[in-house]
Amino acid sequence: MHADVAFEVWSSERQRRIEHVLDRALTFGAGTPAQLAEAMRYAALGGGKRVRPLCAYAAGELTGAEPEAVDALAAAVEMIHAYSLVHDDLPCMDDDVLRRGKPTCHVAFGEARALLAGDALQAHAFAALGVSSVRDPGQALTLLAHAAGAAGMAGGQAIDLAHVGVAMSLPELETMHRMKTGALIRAAIRLGAACGRPLATGETAALDTFADAAGLAFQVVDDVLDVEGSAAILGKTAGKDAARNKPTYVSVLGLAEAKRHAASLREEAHAALSSFGGAARRLHEIADWVTRRTS
Amino acid sequence: MHADVAFEVWSSERQRRIEHVLDRALTFGAGTPAQLAEAMRYAALGGGKRVRPLCAYAAGELTGAEPEAVDALAAAVEMIHAYSLVHDDLPCMDDDVLRRGKPTCHVAFGEARALLAGDALQAHAFAALGVSSVRDPGQALTLLAHAAGAAGMAGGQAIDLAHVGVAMSLPELETMHRMKTGALIRAAIRLGAACGRPLATGETAALDTFADAAGLAFQVVDDVLDVEGSAAILGKTAGKDAARNKPTYVSVLGLAEAKRHAASLREEAHAALSSFGGAARRLHEIADWVTRRTS
Repeated sequence: MHADVAFEVWSSERQRRIEHVLDRALTFGAGTPAQLAEAMRYAALGGGKRVRPLCAYAAGELTGAEPEAVDALAAAVEMIHAYSLVHDDLPCMDDDVLRRGKPTCHVAFGEARALLAGDALQAHAFAALGVSSVRDPGQALTLLAHAAGAAGMAGGQAIDLAHVGVAMSLPELETMHRMKTGALIRAAIRLGAACGRPLATGETAALDTFADAAGLAFQVVDDVLDVEGSAAILGKTAGKDAARNKPTYVSVLGLAEAKRHAASLREEAHAALSSFGGAARRLHEIADWVTRRTS
Repeated sequence: MHADVAFEVWSSERQRRIEHVLDRALTFGAGTPAQLAEAMRYAALGGGKRVRPLCAYAAGELTGAEPEAVDALAAAVEMIHAYSLVHDDLPCMDDDVLRRGKPTCHVAFGEARALLAGDALQAHAFAALGVSSVRDPGQALTLLAHAAGAAGMAGGQAIDLAHVGVAMSLPELETMHRMKTGALIRAAIRLGAACGRPLATGETAALDTFADAAGLAFQVVDDVLDVEGSAAILGKTAGKDAARNKPTYVSVLGLAEAKRHAASLREEAHAALSSFGGAARRLHEIADWVTRRTS
């Protein structure tokens, strides 16, 4: 695909691509219970913005990696994300009934099967890493495992749960989001970049800064849309954070300041890419996209 | 430790060893929410027979690996096991209140935190693999991920759930247990063995046969103890399978025949080790131990 292709075309092509890669990765033989496979596929296929795979592909382009080399890692990161949504939606967590415009996994299949589907998706995320062609499988494994674990995504979720009805400062809110969503976005970018030419130390730090800013921008916009959006557009329940008395960027900063904050994070993300020049085009566009999206 | 040390001494030493290794692996820095870390440690430390780590250490001895080389893999397998117990005990699954003589994780910490602790333990199992010194990290990763996934442990659990109150034939029961517990025991042995000298193809098959027979023997004895044991001795609720109308070896074969079946599986496990001679001593003893145990 040529470098002058518009972002909408590039991203649609990559979204179709990751759907196909996930479809293959989640095609099971006779040894796998069909009911479990069905719930896993329901949770991972057929929807979502695929922000993390797009980040992985864009970072791969930055270091000269072909999409083929990035596929398995992009799928691994997205399966971690998909499992986390299934578990987050469970009645003992956020108790949500709508996700990506469909009934949540436990509404469709029951709690027990949804729990197991999430568990198995996490295992298969790591299985996908095992078949990737990444240069250093041990390093990739460590990166993804820590992004998913207690100091990353699961830890951020634990902080989130502990703050229902409890006020948070802006730094506390950002720490939570850096763990809950930022860690996996950073892993997606690191893993995608690891498929191409080796990065210099400063380049890794620059990509981490980008991931951090773009990840937070994504979350600020999520909070704004939770206030301004509707379930029909979002494909998930709107207004739920406010209804549950969870701290959000809007509750901490107010709506207008939250929007300004998102714009400022986008600028920060762009600035982090300056040394890469045109090779970082898709990452640059991703920062625009996550900030300007309406769903 | 000398080869003439009794199994009870060898296994106690290894049980203390894995406790220490898990303790270190689950010691977290300031970036990890303390409440989540506490639930993870509660679930993984301070109890259990450590069957899977013992299998890994015994298989390591078979191929000449020092315990130091096996530690990370043994911890990885045990963390997968520990997470599965936390999730299996949840109200939407087996709804159990007693495990290893203590309140189950969700009774102690609430469902949401138990769910996240299980999720994070799975991630940290893979993180432990990442720091292991195994020859081929990609292969080890694939092995563990498949053992934990939809065609392994999670799949076996899904079959189990689908058969509450539904009769099973002996082959169906064995397929379920081969997935639910056998897959992880096989992975423990394969991973432990991979820490020493390379295995010939026939040797890998022999170890798989051993793992299969020893794993099933363990399960048959579990079912017998569920009928004959008490919670005080078992450290978990007794009679629960019968109470839930779940198929067990005792319900399928009757008590006397189930005991004969366990003895026959032990013989099968021993026979699989014949070509290894004295190097397989600890695996041989493990087959005795899991068959003769009273808790």
